[in-house]
Amino acid sequence: MIRSQLLQLQLFNPRYLEQLDGSSSRMSEIMKYGFPGLDDIRVYSDFILSYDRRNRVAHWVYEHLHASCLKPNGSRVRRQEEQYQPDMNVPSNFRSDLTDYKHSGYDRGHLAAAGNHKSHQTHCNETFFLTNIAPQVGKGFNHDAWNNLEIYVRELTERYGSVYVCTGPIYKPKRQLRGVRDLENTQTMVEKWCVEYEVIGANTVAVPTHFFKVITVESKLPGGSPYMEAYLMPNAPISSNTNIRDFLADIRDIEHIAGLQFFNGLRRSFFFGTNYPTSSGIYRNFE
Amino acid sequence: MIRSQLLQLQLFNPRYLEQLDGSSSRMSEIMKYGFPGLDDIRVYSDFILSYDRRNRVAHWVYEHLHASCLKPNGSRVRRQEEQYQPDMNVPSNFRSDLTDYKHSGYDRGHLAAAGNHKSHQTHCNETFFLTNIAPQVGKGFNHDAWNNLEIYVRELTERYGSVYVCTGPIYKPKRQLRGVRDLENTQTMVEKWCVEYEVIGANTVAVPTHFFKVITVESKLPGGSPYMEAYLMPNAPISSNTNIRDFLADIRDIEHIAGLQFFNGLRRSFFFGTNYPTSSGIYRNFE
Repeated sequence: MIRSQLLQLQLFNPRYLEQLDGSSSRMSEIMKYGFPGLDDIRVYSDFILSYDRRNRVAHWVYEHLHASCLKPNGSRVRRQEEQYQPDMNVPSNFRSDLTDYKHSGYDRGHLAAAGNHKSHQTHCNETFFLTNIAPQVGKGFNHDAWNNLEIYVRELTERYGSVYVCTGPIYKPKRQLRGVRDLENTQTMVEKWCVEYEVIGANTVAVPTHFFKVITVESKLPGGSPYMEAYLMPNAPISSNTNIRDFLADIRDIEHIAGLQFFNGLRRSFFFGTNYPTSSGIYRNFE
Repeated sequence: MIRSQLLQLQLFNPRYLEQLDGSSSRMSEIMKYGFPGLDDIRVYSDFILSYDRRNRVAHWVYEHLHASCLKPNGSRVRRQEEQYQPDMNVPSNFRSDLTDYKHSGYDRGHLAAAGNHKSHQTHCNETFFLTNIAPQVGKGFNHDAWNNLEIYVRELTERYGSVYVCTGPIYKPKRQLRGVRDLENTQTMVEKWCVEYEVIGANTVAVPTHFFKVITVESKLPGGSPYMEAYLMPNAPISSNTNIRDFLADIRDIEHIAGLQFFNGLRRSFFFGTNYPTSSGIYRNFE
């Protein structure tokens, strides 16, 4: 199944694959658990993403982490703030730019975290392409709760050795009072479900209402089934005494809101055995 | 270029092509001017669409009309209201359903108009799949201004013989006053650009703020260049004395807001010669 998806992608976007020596086999590794969607796939050296041309933010970014990703392989890998840059492979009409974020009040938040790609300078640098960046609330979110979630993912990687992470934005509907006019032009207030999000800059880059991470932890036991859990956090200041486990979410809700399909539409028990959370027993402890 | 896109699609979604006898050559005809996007392509017998799994509404629907499409080929083709039905080929998590529209206050509005597909009963029936339907304001829009635009497209078809139409939803950002809280939790009102749209039913089907049509009219003269024009209409009651030409729009604006790319990213002058509207002389008269 993965093989046929890869074949599609080679035809789909051959330029990327030609550019990146050996990327195809690395891509197979990263995408082991399937593509959540196939819109505008973009292959980088250590992560894969699907780009949303309408919102100028990725649909999702997939990483495969192992302990060696987190440490420099030779000389020290530096996170350079000035590395943020537009990805010129995206057509100009759909590209986000540095000026979109400037004075917007939002951080340039990483989807694939820079700290997950420290084994090579190229890997780290590529996380600064704006295709991997989304507008995030800084204080209380990007610097705090979201950062804690990223640290948690690295702790899982140190502990279990092999972790797959899929990260992306969510535009979540919420209940709102809206004025509705009848034929006599009289306005009444009615409760409706609405999607509402800000867009910043000349390229109208979407500010997601939430962000998700779908995390798959492989077992160290031979033949052991992997374990998965999912997080959904509002792109808003989160109180520092909140536990990240308060943001555990049902992956089916994330799939529904984001329009994505995880684990390739296969029966999830195929991958997860009894480690796939059921509605009656979500989030058992893996240990 | 089209040939390589078709090859991708065959790998991409082989099921559809197997199902539909002869659809591949009809698809090449319909998609002559290129795919505006490649997300979740779905092939029907007389139109092609790209489906937006997040919004449960198509990204775009492409038709190729000629005079024979508008008339029954043999027995009378009937438009049956009870033909509205979900497309069971869409995974259930991303499918819109009849119940989503019920009591929503919105019409089940066609993207590819039923009246454009009268040569075979199957063609007409397929326009009633909910993948080709979007929530539209009835009075003043679907029954009126939008219907006038559909009639205009059929008039062009009768007159010039070969017309390509691409129709889709738009979620247009607008300026809004939003409350922003500072560190002291004091709220101030700030003007921001926001995308806001309603979603209806359990499947949260998006109600687009606008709809577009990009129309390509082929010249009857041998070797004559085609002519194109684009329309963008708000999904709202439109006064009956408004001329549809008031809704002429720059195709580049539609591309930017919708995240689509018309005419395959080729230099447009390749297709249109001097009939492609330039910024200095948009919408010359074709006659």
